Amino acid sequence: MKKKPITILDIGEELNISASTVSRALADSSLVNSETKKKVVELAKKYNYQPNFTALSLQSNSTKTIGVLIPNVVHEFFGLVLRGVEDHCHSSGYSCIVYPTNEDPDREISGIKALMTGRVDGVLLSFRGKTNLHIKQLIERNIPLVFFDTADESFATHRVLIDDKKAGYLATKHLIEVGSKKIGFIGGSENINNQLRLEGYKQAVSEAGITIDPQLIVYSLDKSQDEMGLEDSEKLLSVKGIDGIFATTDMFAVGVLKNLKKINLKCPEDIAVIGFSNWAISRVYEPSLSTVEQPGYEMGIKAAELLIDQIKNPETPSDFKTVLIPTEVIVRTSTARGNNVAHST
Amino acid sequence: MKKKPITILDIGEELNISASTVSRALADSSLVNSETKKKVVELAKKYNYQPNFTALSLQSNSTKTIGVLIPNVVHEFFGLVLRGVEDHCHSSGYSCIVYPTNEDPDREISGIKALMTGRVDGVLLSFRGKTNLHIKQLIERNIPLVFFDTADESFATHRVLIDDKKAGYLATKHLIEVGSKKIGFIGGSENINNQLRLEGYKQAVSEAGITIDPQLIVYSLDKSQDEMGLEDSEKLLSVKGIDGIFATTDMFAVGVLKNLKKINLKCPEDIAVIGFSNWAISRVYEPSLSTVEQPGYEMGIKAAELLIDQIKNPETPSDFKTVLIPTEVIVRTSTARGNNVAHST
Repeated sequence: MKKKPITILDIGEELNISASTVSRALADSSLVNSETKKKVVELAKKYNYQPNFTALSLQSNSTKTIGVLIPNVVHEFFGLVLRGVEDHCHSSGYSCIVYPTNEDPDREISGIKALMTGRVDGVLLSFRGKTNLHIKQLIERNIPLVFFDTADESFATHRVLIDDKKAGYLATKHLIEVGSKKIGFIGGSENINNQLRLEGYKQAVSEAGITIDPQLIVYSLDKSQDEMGLEDSEKLLSVKGIDGIFATTDMFAVGVLKNLKKINLKCPEDIAVIGFSNWAISRVYEPSLSTVEQPGYEMGIKAAELLIDQIKNPETPSDFKTVLIPTEVIVRTSTARGNNVAHST
Repeated sequence: MKKKPITILDIGEELNISASTVSRALADSSLVNSETKKKVVELAKKYNYQPNFTALSLQSNSTKTIGVLIPNVVHEFFGLVLRGVEDHCHSSGYSCIVYPTNEDPDREISGIKALMTGRVDGVLLSFRGKTNLHIKQLIERNIPLVFFDTADESFATHRVLIDDKKAGYLATKHLIEVGSKKIGFIGGSENINNQLRLEGYKQAVSEAGITIDPQLIVYSLDKSQDEMGLEDSEKLLSVKGIDGIFATTDMFAVGVLKNLKKINLKCPEDIAVIGFSNWAISRVYEPSLSTVEQPGYEMGIKAAELLIDQIKNPETPSDFKTVLIPTEVIVRTSTARGNNVAHST
């Protein structure tokens, strides 16, 4: 049976003073004499009194809690985002409710609806929706919203993203710099991030005076982060003369490296390979994998910071920002040829 | 500026009926005539009325929310636990507040204290505390608590664990079955799970009539999941005649595999290696790594199920259970010798 927690009423009754005097005494108000204060504090301690969160929330119209919708919790990048969000919340006195949506647009909608009922002061979202009515409703209720990783551009909100197009451009340019001329692209799914990375790829290829060849651009059906797109990269590797591959996830890049071993091609000598995200596996695999750093922790910190600032200063006419977290190419063995020496990261 | 959400008072005022009639109408009560009901429902729809979570919580003395303390969110095993917890919460109409504690006992204490203020109906905890006063306080307040992964055995609660001793025993026994006679143990830190895995190791070694050799038992200073314990496994591999290694994490096992390549020893021919957890890397690395499955998703489902059952039936005198989630050895290339054929998992 649930024991009823001690309230200021109980403390007041025992000391024969009013609940508001107890409340003032606990807040160290000058309106209460020091002897009464001492008695109240002692009794509160004795009964292990804790102010009730829910009652305080209703009183203050604030929950000191934010909600975070995470597409995938078994995922290094989103894990890092969550750690960043949590660290900033922790240092700001906020808590964080996490809704994993498993990349399911319906769960995104039900998550947003659950968060709209007054249980959070603001929401962080990596947008995966097919529609955006739920976002519209959230914004109409004036619940602060910050997008991270992916945004629905049709709303005026803060956004914390990476520049996916630039990152794709830098990865492909790096392959060109190490001498690749016929460069394949393998992406996990045709989501907005991968489309932008492909745009960057096309820009780098075009700038180098190379014709864009559709047979070098492949989206794999293996969409899960654990999958390596083995079949699709095998097809890509069968294109004659291919000498470089940009994969939009590190697991896909590892799939390419595995297939290369099978057909006795050497990496980086025959084909240079670069991945995306800088997961642990890119450092651990042999050959170690060049990749693009995707700074999840920094993204989480920044998104939580913007959201909590907006919650605290709701009356400031917001000058919404799109913050791009810088990315960089990390060179390891899989592209270490010519003048490029692999870093020991 | 935050717009005030529509309440039943507003709806009542507009229709010139009492708030309680609105409330009854929304609950489809037989005390309200169908015409009024229709008007109320239409207006509620028009204004997108949502019941206030905080007000409902105070009324019902229930938050329909559980709190989960996770030692590490950038971690495949804990990610899977969280996914299991979330899936069960989702199907039971509960939400889940996540507190990553970063393996820090102080953050475990502050997390528990934050959760004690009435914002959750129950708590899931992987215990990492150095002291347990915070657990005592939680239990004194009759807030249901279920331990997962690691438990403080001094409290009567449900626990959802794996049998770490048995898992360590099975891993070591498997190495003996594939012909290893001088078997090393490398552990990430001397926490309770690893101590139990070591006990299992010792049992298997003793049963095989092999003397336990302290120089074959190593704890690495690299405690982070991303670290591979390279230095420590190098020392272990320098022990003459060593022909098998049981590592308590897959990353440590990969560190061993890397060191073996450096000193030109073959795996599994010269040394058989088995890891722990069945992370993606164990499947992807070459040679693929034999390991012990640690079913995080099942653990999360079961822990959430026991907690929510306890929240719903608080007056049943609880017959607290310790549920052991079954583990099994997954055989891959790193121990595939003799009669053992690597599975293609």
